[in-house]
Amino acid sequence: MKHERRPRLRDLGIEIGTMPLGEHNAITDVPGVRVGHATVMHGDGPLVVGQGPARTGVTAIHPHEGSAFTSMVPAAIAVLNGAGEMTGRSQVDEYGLIETPILITNTLSVGAVHRGAVEWLTDHEDSLRNSDFVIPVVAETFDGFLNDVAGQHVTTEHVYAALDAARGGPVAEGCVGGGTGMMLFRFKGGIGTSSRVVELDDHAYTVGVLVQGNFGARADLLVDGVPVGREIDDLQPVRGEPEEQKPQPDGSIIVVIATDAPLTDRQLLRLCKRGMLGLGRVGSTARQSSGDILIAFSNAPENRFDRFNREGLVTNVRVNDERIDDVFQATIEATSEAVLNALVAAETTVGRDGNTAYALPHDRLREVMRKYGRLKE
Amino acid sequence: MKHERRPRLRDLGIEIGTMPLGEHNAITDVPGVRVGHATVMHGDGPLVVGQGPARTGVTAIHPHEGSAFTSMVPAAIAVLNGAGEMTGRSQVDEYGLIETPILITNTLSVGAVHRGAVEWLTDHEDSLRNSDFVIPVVAETFDGFLNDVAGQHVTTEHVYAALDAARGGPVAEGCVGGGTGMMLFRFKGGIGTSSRVVELDDHAYTVGVLVQGNFGARADLLVDGVPVGREIDDLQPVRGEPEEQKPQPDGSIIVVIATDAPLTDRQLLRLCKRGMLGLGRVGSTARQSSGDILIAFSNAPENRFDRFNREGLVTNVRVNDERIDDVFQATIEATSEAVLNALVAAETTVGRDGNTAYALPHDRLREVMRKYGRLKE
Amino acid sequence: MKHERRPRLRDLGIEIGTMPLGEHNAITDVPGVRVGHATVMHGDGPLVVGQGPARTGVTAIHPHEGSAFTSMVPAAIAVLNGAGEMTGRSQVDEYGLIETPILITNTLSVGAVHRGAVEWLTDHEDSLRNSDFVIPVVAETFDGFLNDVAGQHVTTEHVYAALDAARGGPVAEGCVGGGTGMMLFRFKGGIGTSSRVVELDDHAYTVGVLVQGNFGARADLLVDGVPVGREIDDLQPVRGEPEEQKPQPDGSIIVVIATDAPLTDRQLLRLCKRGMLGLGRVGSTARQSSGDILIAFSNAPENRFDRFNREGLVTNVRVNDERIDDVFQATIEATSEAVLNALVAAETTVGRDGNTAYALPHDRLREVMRKYGRLKE
Amino acid sequence: MKHERRPRLRDLGIEIGTMPLGEHNAITDVPGVRVGHATVMHGDGPLVVGQGPARTGVTAIHPHEGSAFTSMVPAAIAVLNGAGEMTGRSQVDEYGLIETPILITNTLSVGAVHRGAVEWLTDHEDSLRNSDFVIPVVAETFDGFLNDVAGQHVTTEHVYAALDAARGGPVAEGCVGGGTGMMLFRFKGGIGTSSRVVELDDHAYTVGVLVQGNFGARADLLVDGVPVGREIDDLQPVRGEPEEQKPQPDGSIIVVIATDAPLTDRQLLRLCKRGMLGLGRVGSTARQSSGDILIAFSNAPENRFDRFNREGLVTNVRVNDERIDDVFQATIEATSEAVLNALVAAETTVGRDGNTAYALPHDRLREVMRKYGRLKE
Repeated sequence: MKHERRPRLRDLGIEIGTMPLGEHNAITDVPGVRVGHATVMHGDGPLVVGQGPARTGVTAIHPHEGSAFTSMVPAAIAVLNGAGEMTGRSQVDEYGLIETPILITNTLSVGAVHRGAVEWLTDHEDSLRNSDFVIPVVAETFDGFLNDVAGQHVTTEHVYAALDAARGGPVAEGCVGGGTGMMLFRFKGGIGTSSRVVELDDHAYTVGVLVQGNFGARADLLVDGVPVGREIDDLQPVRGEPEEQKPQPDGSIIVVIATDAPLTDRQLLRLCKRGMLGLGRVGSTARQSSGDILIAFSNAPENRFDRFNREGLVTNVRVNDERIDDVFQATIEATSEAVLNALVAAETTVGRDGNTAYALPHDRLREVMRKYGRLKE
Repeated sequence: MKHERRPRLRDLGIEIGTMPLGEHNAITDVPGVRVGHATVMHGDGPLVVGQGPARTGVTAIHPHEGSAFTSMVPAAIAVLNGAGEMTGRSQVDEYGLIETPILITNTLSVGAVHRGAVEWLTDHEDSLRNSDFVIPVVAETFDGFLNDVAGQHVTTEHVYAALDAARGGPVAEGCVGGGTGMMLFRFKGGIGTSSRVVELDDHAYTVGVLVQGNFGARADLLVDGVPVGREIDDLQPVRGEPEEQKPQPDGSIIVVIATDAPLTDRQLLRLCKRGMLGLGRVGSTARQSSGDILIAFSNAPENRFDRFNREGLVTNVRVNDERIDDVFQATIEATSEAVLNALVAAETTVGRDGNTAYALPHDRLREVMRKYGRLKE
Repeated sequence: MKHERRPRLRDLGIEIGTMPLGEHNAITDVPGVRVGHATVMHGDGPLVVGQGPARTGVTAIHPHEGSAFTSMVPAAIAVLNGAGEMTGRSQVDEYGLIETPILITNTLSVGAVHRGAVEWLTDHEDSLRNSDFVIPVVAETFDGFLNDVAGQHVTTEHVYAALDAARGGPVAEGCVGGGTGMMLFRFKGGIGTSSRVVELDDHAYTVGVLVQGNFGARADLLVDGVPVGREIDDLQPVRGEPEEQKPQPDGSIIVVIATDAPLTDRQLLRLCKRGMLGLGRVGSTARQSSGDILIAFSNAPENRFDRFNREGLVTNVRVNDERIDDVFQATIEATSEAVLNALVAAETTVGRDGNTAYALPHDRLREVMRKYGRLKE
Repeated sequence: MKHERRPRLRDLGIEIGTMPLGEHNAITDVPGVRVGHATVMHGDGPLVVGQGPARTGVTAIHPHEGSAFTSMVPAAIAVLNGAGEMTGRSQVDEYGLIETPILITNTLSVGAVHRGAVEWLTDHEDSLRNSDFVIPVVAETFDGFLNDVAGQHVTTEHVYAALDAARGGPVAEGCVGGGTGMMLFRFKGGIGTSSRVVELDDHAYTVGVLVQGNFGARADLLVDGVPVGREIDDLQPVRGEPEEQKPQPDGSIIVVIATDAPLTDRQLLRLCKRGMLGLGRVGSTARQSSGDILIAFSNAPENRFDRFNREGLVTNVRVNDERIDDVFQATIEATSEAVLNALVAAETTVGRDGNTAYALPHDRLREVMRKYGRLKE
């Protein structure tokens, strides 16, 4: 699917933090990381469960240029607020490794995507056809305001499409893939990404973040510390018919943090906590019904673990913790900016029953930022 | 499916611990708890992925007599060794509640069962058809030695069958439901259950445990402290053709602990840790590739939480921690005996490629127990 | 010790968040909570370990108006970055209760304060003199830039003084008690407090926070989202002689969250995570060597647990999680403002070897806030 | 202090598990690990708080032959039941390193020992006298049945004595050091140790365990699976005068697991969990008031971390998780045997108020083991 490039936060003259960006200001600036989307969008009008309208999809992230299954990489998962799902956590905790791509979809499609992932992996990995097993990482946020979420519109084919479409380079943002039907601070939300570059001795390492953003009350929204949500309190989501719809529960956010800096699982858990601070910077209060879950991985070539390696000892390299503060800072900045990129890229969307979520208007955002002394012009 | 009652550990004259049993010595002795199995068993001979042979299934546990979705109960999950999956953990951690039945299947069918559970729940719960969401608890162990596990033989229909078949009363054990293709200490394993009754002031509360047991090297097996696994070291699993099969990874165990004693999520986490000690008693060393995951819930009527309750304050009752030791003891005893009941109930099974797992021979078990002074006769 | 009231953030016209304050904008607005400080400040000039100069102390917080030992209250502890100490965590985790006042001091005085606390408790509690035990909560941050921290200037007498001086009402802030020698964003820091009031049905509950703040690089400092630290980058700490001093490690923060809203230990853990988001709001990046540890307790009378209660069942009340979002918001706002109150209240301090930490200049702070559109006048 | 060698479990012909032992069957078989005890035993008759009788002490474990402060080693801490204290956990969790010796004492002496440790470290480490900090690991179990625990009989001098006395080679067991006043299964308990050797490729690695054992009801005691506690139910502790003593709370156990196998902090956490299974094997039910806390460290020379190392990258070696099962088995066996060695080594002790704890009679133990088919002769 063709996806026109949408404006990004920096196109509006707004910069988050002080660290240098990667080439595409995207998670794919981490060498080898590949992102693919399958967007499921069809139908209009009243909700008929199983028919639509569909405003959903799935987003896939391959941790490196090869097979995450045969060449596993260090990873960690952390939960800010647990009203959500990221499968595979027990195994990531135990081994400190991730063994599949990361897939993000809607809440009720976790099962379908999990099964699709197992099928795709079985197709690609010989050992899975002869007594090996795999535990995929599948995460979700809830798109029931716009999407026929109970209708199960995400299928194995979409999982294959997202996994197979995954590429490096620029990443489509906003209403795409798993983010198609998501909302952010009661504006339209979805997929966003950002990256930072960290110098360590003579090396440059990249930290890249991708989010599927679907959280927040309007008043919570902060852009570089400016209370944009309190300044722009109109353009609230509008419900179509029937009126008896229940209010949508507050949403969630999935944060994927990637780096080629050699980090251990313990250090990656530390990065997840900095991702939480990055969410705090854009105004997250991690509301009651929000599933705010973070995963971080390091794909440094020297730390990849061959699935069939049975040697007695394994050698690893890690960034000295005493030198890690810039990686923390990079994670915070990239997480904040990824959320805001999702917000800026998203477009006004009409979904089930005519429910409408509005895009954050760029001109008004710039106006508020100017009022608070954040834009030169 | 008709399932002939198999002998149980106590039928062989072997008793674990000292506490009194519930009526059926089963998790269903906890009032309201219902268990259902769907067993998938067809085909023989060489493995053809997608065709079989199938030796698998799904087991469902309803936490009480009503809907776990609308009437949620306190719960907690803990991991002894994380090479496995139990979905829904983040939400159970966050809210201290479980909102679905618990489903147990094989490793590669987690997605299919998750989707089946969502469909079944959507069928049964109005709110799910109009912008509500649900995060099911689906767990697994690996049956690839006997089953065409990559063939995806568990379907939505089996999930419905298990959930709809669920009943109180005696529970089928051994090669049934999710346990159909599982192995224990390199004998045939599967589903097992046990219960204990705890007196507290004038009340009798029940602790019931159900396991899907699939772990352990032979030498590890302890029966009431007796090294049965070292005494019976023949009857090892036999591989059919082709010989180039990879060795099966060590297996896993899912432990479900139920009680009607009013316990909070914090206390239920304590019960999960005692379940670990119960596994230790039967010889678990929680091997590298074992997914040993425990979930505990309390269905005491006074602590159920109505999903749509929006009152400001909620009242709860809990067992005084200072009086909880008997509940701990009950959990340890019932967990140990549930594992051994799975072992005793299982029958010799021939699966994919003619691979064979042998049942623990009851007469030889009794002989060993007698040698170690544990049987009177 | 007399402590002149220092200006607070709101005295400068700066307001954090939108929720109403408690009477004193202090942790003591939570009924029954009492705070006491013992400040240890003597000597000038070169460091002589054991002699001084001393710029340190201890701060005590009683969870309610009575004995925390005999009448325990629900509590939880969480760690944002663990380069610090808060004793008693295992027991708080296990029982969900706190059984002592909370004491905060410098890093190397944890032992002395722990022992002082045990002695004070033994003096006050009969059961401790006859085969009972107690595990105090003692936390710390590091004041080695200004204080002879290895000199062990905090003694049992100071612990008694802080515990005995504890009162409700206004709380001394800045360079007082455990905060005497602390630094914040490379300005002088110390003790700060704030509170918010939450309406729930017909009740008003208070959330109060007290921090001992000692963290952050200058550039990190955010005041209501404004990059004050980047705008005021002079007034960095100045080292006296000898020059060969090692750079001080980045500091830490202890956050104490109190409420009279009836919350369980699980919910209090949720509050701790919102405290982390509050730290993120003022610019925390939780640096490598920072010990950022949070404790939350609820002293609602209906949930206090009598130490000698051996009844079978215990009744509790909790705020419905579905109504908890305002409590989260209150925690974030009060945590942020408590940090900033510590910063505003602190005074320029000269310590060991003539090392100097400067107070944040109030006029320049106001000037920056005005520049960023945050002050009316 | 001279400590006569006491009999050990194997001297009685009882062997736990199947793996080979280290030279001394002690934690000191791990090269470099050093253990020292300071035993505090004086006075008889009625308890006078502050005077005695004293039956207590402190045990010190240096992780390697040098300074743990300047040369830190990977470590992890886990809690089976949290009614106890092990300071330093937050930092061990965060960095995956331990930076001090491990000290074990009685519950109310944690503060005194913590302060003593800080003083000893300040004496030995230059950087601590000039703006560095340290967070010691101090753990405890409760000896109030025999000891004037509120009397604070452990002082800085005892901490120095234990740390300075520490040696490799045979380790004194039973009523010594921190274990002087402890009880196990209502017999006399205290310090115990054991070790196992693991072959990995061409290397032999050692796992050594030391416990301070103070837990368990009599009926819980299992020796190699034999219900010794149910068979020997006399020789219960006898209270002297006054009769109004409160019953002693159930006790606790501290488990220290050492190895020279190169393991990461994540893997060491896995070892701690196997230590729990080892406790389960000797009958632990982790009772309500038991503080069952485990720490594991690996002193492999290649993974030691120089405190002042500020290089960008650090290289580590670890045992391949796929080859770790023998290390797990070794941990379980050594933990079980260490507990039983504590029990066998301990001597009948009369303490405060004439309270008496009896040693497990060796002949009767052998008799029971024979009855259950565990002794040849």
